[in-house]
Amino acid sequence: MSHKKEISRQADYPFKVEIQTRWSDNDMFGHLNNVIYQRFFEHVVVAFLNGPCAMDLLNAPVITFAAESQCRFLRPLSYPGQVVAGIRIDHMGRTSARYGLALFEEGQDEAAAEGHWVHVFVDRTSQKPVPIPDTVRAVFDAHRRSP
Amino acid sequence: MSHKKEISRQADYPFKVEIQTRWSDNDMFGHLNNVIYQRFFEHVVVAFLNGPCAMDLLNAPVITFAAESQCRFLRPLSYPGQVVAGIRIDHMGRTSARYGLALFEEGQDEAAAEGHWVHVFVDRTSQKPVPIPDTVRAVFDAHRRSP
Amino acid sequence: MSHKKEISRQADYPFKVEIQTRWSDNDMFGHLNNVIYQRFFEHVVVAFLNGPCAMDLLNAPVITFAAESQCRFLRPLSYPGQVVAGIRIDHMGRTSARYGLALFEEGQDEAAAEGHWVHVFVDRTSQKPVPIPDTVRAVFDAHRRSP
Amino acid sequence: MSHKKEISRQADYPFKVEIQTRWSDNDMFGHLNNVIYQRFFEHVVVAFLNGPCAMDLLNAPVITFAAESQCRFLRPLSYPGQVVAGIRIDHMGRTSARYGLALFEEGQDEAAAEGHWVHVFVDRTSQKPVPIPDTVRAVFDAHRRSP
Repeated sequence: MSHKKEISRQADYPFKVEIQTRWSDNDMFGHLNNVIYQRFFEHVVVAFLNGPCAMDLLNAPVITFAAESQCRFLRPLSYPGQVVAGIRIDHMGRTSARYGLALFEEGQDEAAAEGHWVHVFVDRTSQKPVPIPDTVRAVFDAHRRSP
Repeated sequence: MSHKKEISRQADYPFKVEIQTRWSDNDMFGHLNNVIYQRFFEHVVVAFLNGPCAMDLLNAPVITFAAESQCRFLRPLSYPGQVVAGIRIDHMGRTSARYGLALFEEGQDEAAAEGHWVHVFVDRTSQKPVPIPDTVRAVFDAHRRSP
Repeated sequence: MSHKKEISRQADYPFKVEIQTRWSDNDMFGHLNNVIYQRFFEHVVVAFLNGPCAMDLLNAPVITFAAESQCRFLRPLSYPGQVVAGIRIDHMGRTSARYGLALFEEGQDEAAAEGHWVHVFVDRTSQKPVPIPDTVRAVFDAHRRSP
Repeated sequence: MSHKKEISRQADYPFKVEIQTRWSDNDMFGHLNNVIYQRFFEHVVVAFLNGPCAMDLLNAPVITFAAESQCRFLRPLSYPGQVVAGIRIDHMGRTSARYGLALFEEGQDEAAAEGHWVHVFVDRTSQKPVPIPDTVRAVFDAHRRSP
């Protein structure tokens, strides 16, 4: 039995999108700037909420605020490559959820970066926490981390 | 005895810089986009390394790669306010260090966000880990978290 | 009589703001990326509209859409320097205005970049052009290019 | 005979790329922020120089500096749509060239934005203007604006 932390693979993430890198994503060292990794996490989170979860973040009465973000950088990514970003639900509470997130160099099965975001669901007007809408909860359930 | 996590204060961070927000830092919800918090962490980290640590990241033979980043969002920040960003050394190994980081709304003593970055020091050419230079190590020692 | 185009000077711009550069504003060639110059033009335009013009872009019934932008790059700017950005009114129509814009390296009197933006004033809801509000028009008049 | 300025069409641009929009490209008014248009111009310019022109901007002895940029905004673009960006050579001198540039909403034949960039070719080390390399000049010739 090993305690070595496993690097996650593409199959560990049930929803994935391709992200096009931009020249301006690279930093002065010729790799994707590490802040851009969070930008790519945002991309897959928004694609997941607007897509399968059908949330319509621009107009919906319930929106999401970030409570926490984290990223471990495992290998460099660079423009002009394509990046695959994956998301899964690691934990779901009443008013918040924790997403497991990863970035992959196109064609590679081992993650180049792993991390998570915690989102709190809030009323757009009052900005107070509200229960995760049932329709969203059902989609989250279908995208939980496999045991 | 309380287990409640304390919110850090400005005095907990021995090196601080002011950061000017930009209109484009706000997201469609009218607050600083959460990815921008990482951009502000980058700002204070670079100011610390180029300033007190005298590293000259553009030309030095030893540069830094991010290994991990993390942020907890405690209260919203918005353009056009000024933000104060603070850094301290939470842990120092042979080739890597962990920085404690925080952002404050100007004039507020409780952090609006807290987090950390882990930097690995690498040779600019080989990109292999190398010991933290002695001059940098001395400055890190002087900026350790107070006990 | 010379036809040589004059490089504009700080005194040619009646409203100016200081802009803090960021590490991420530099491109892989070690200078401010040229797209960032437009970001800095945006900074002074928004500061002028929200400040002296008292427009409150986030809530006002009349907002502005860009119709045209232009920039000539005269000398490089770089992080970590401060940049001074200036604005003046070059032309004012019924529903639109043309701003003259310039960026200066701190402490330099000759512009590092010159350009202009044309803004159309539109109703926030209908997004149709509307007359420039009288209060804004008065401030524009006071910031016209000197003859 | 009409003096009305024609809006350019996709066929007017011999080299085109698709650009994926990002959530963060939208501004607080729900459209692509106008500075992002310049980012998209940069995207197609770099794709053209690194692609057909085989310039390898990261390592080549000759690099390019922007001397001028311009954009006219004709209709709004928004996340999450795809954008088509086109480039053609409008003018070529000894050490500089002017690119005609346009952005199109996917599936639309009339441009959403038109503009140009002027690039000066410079020696990477001395940063002095140098003649456009012959191999690049040949590709530019093949991408000139049709008469």
